[in-house]
Amino acid sequence: MSDEKYFQNITARERAIFEGAITMGALFHQFVGTPVSFESANSLENAIMNSLELQPCINGVNVKIDRRILKESENEYQYLSLTGDMLDVQVVSEYGGVTVKVRMRYIEELHYPLMYVEEVD
Amino acid sequence: MSDEKYFQNITARERAIFEGAITMGALFHQFVGTPVSFESANSLENAIMNSLELQPCINGVNVKIDRRILKESENEYQYLSLTGDMLDVQVVSEYGGVTVKVRMRYIEELHYPLMYVEEVD
Amino acid sequence: MSDEKYFQNITARERAIFEGAITMGALFHQFVGTPVSFESANSLENAIMNSLELQPCINGVNVKIDRRILKESENEYQYLSLTGDMLDVQVVSEYGGVTVKVRMRYIEELHYPLMYVEEVD
Amino acid sequence: MSDEKYFQNITARERAIFEGAITMGALFHQFVGTPVSFESANSLENAIMNSLELQPCINGVNVKIDRRILKESENEYQYLSLTGDMLDVQVVSEYGGVTVKVRMRYIEELHYPLMYVEEVD
Repeated sequence: MSDEKYFQNITARERAIFEGAITMGALFHQFVGTPVSFESANSLENAIMNSLELQPCINGVNVKIDRRILKESENEYQYLSLTGDMLDVQVVSEYGGVTVKVRMRYIEELHYPLMYVEEVD
Repeated sequence: MSDEKYFQNITARERAIFEGAITMGALFHQFVGTPVSFESANSLENAIMNSLELQPCINGVNVKIDRRILKESENEYQYLSLTGDMLDVQVVSEYGGVTVKVRMRYIEELHYPLMYVEEVD
Repeated sequence: MSDEKYFQNITARERAIFEGAITMGALFHQFVGTPVSFESANSLENAIMNSLELQPCINGVNVKIDRRILKESENEYQYLSLTGDMLDVQVVSEYGGVTVKVRMRYIEELHYPLMYVEEVD
Repeated sequence: MSDEKYFQNITARERAIFEGAITMGALFHQFVGTPVSFESANSLENAIMNSLELQPCINGVNVKIDRRILKESENEYQYLSLTGDMLDVQVVSEYGGVTVKVRMRYIEELHYPLMYVEEVD
């Protein structure tokens, strides 16, 4: 069984962009809010990568959680809730020979964690 | 301040697809798991629409939660956790005069709630 | 079918505390990350209340999203991701004649959105 | 800075129950919906344990994701969205010398993943 018939109206390049974007939106909204500390960040990064790489057309996911923000946390509980500002993510999607890199990172001048297409090959 | 410089490498049509896809991925992973009943479904649909329409380039969001599944719930607590199988969603994105409709619905033959591009204008 | 046999080892008061606490943890981690603006806040508050009131032993949920924080948002997209700092929540649980009010609000001196038992009757 | 003044009206035993319950509600609603496969389950279990153990008064978290359900998945994408039915969780909380074990597991006769207090010491 294949899903190809549902994607007749877009190109391979568009499909790769589509799937990379879904995965980036999914990543943000699944994991924002998770308790995270300097010590637990590595394990959370691994789970994010391993779970999102399962999605259709996804070849790779790189996630970096900003350790400086975690270190500077000033509450007495020694952890924070994960926010978009802490995340730098690259999702690599591929379809029909086209590879797309979708990026999310906090852009200072926009005051916003922007998702955009970094590269198309 | 504008984000245009981050989107130089893709077309208007690709940008509309990109933003629609992000919002669909976001919707699924933000709201799956929410307690929902026949009575509360309408209020949850409204919140999903009103929150996701805030995202960049999104013109409209239509969400239908399957009332039959909610009615047939057989546990004694009279509610369920929202799953992808209960959702039929259409996200309308627009950029540079191109309108894209992204759809998610459960596809019986795929055993999967598929996200795909339904229409591009 | 009843769940009573699973709660033999705790008192009615403890059961009410237990259920109120579950619902508060659920609320935070289900909805943090949701896009929210000054205009959409009311619809999100309603959905949070209607969905969490479905959980066992919950009689009422009051949610206030801080409108000042939403107004002061300085990014160009005119919305924010919901965080714990924006939330003031009261969950009312009841079991065996005991009513418990669980509260979550941002406590300045703790730099933390604290969940605690506000009242037991 | 301490949070003790917010917990004057409950006993040590009640505090331990309260914190264990919050963490169980948090766990369910943070991670339900995450893509998971037979291969990625171990990494997701680790991240869940490491993140929830950060919460106040939590001494240990054990999470088992049901591998049989993952193996039997019949869709062509070879993964599922995490649901409560796949989870067997034990959260160990401790306060003032009292240890509480909160459990969540799917109860066949209730058709429901029940959260309850398994043990108090």
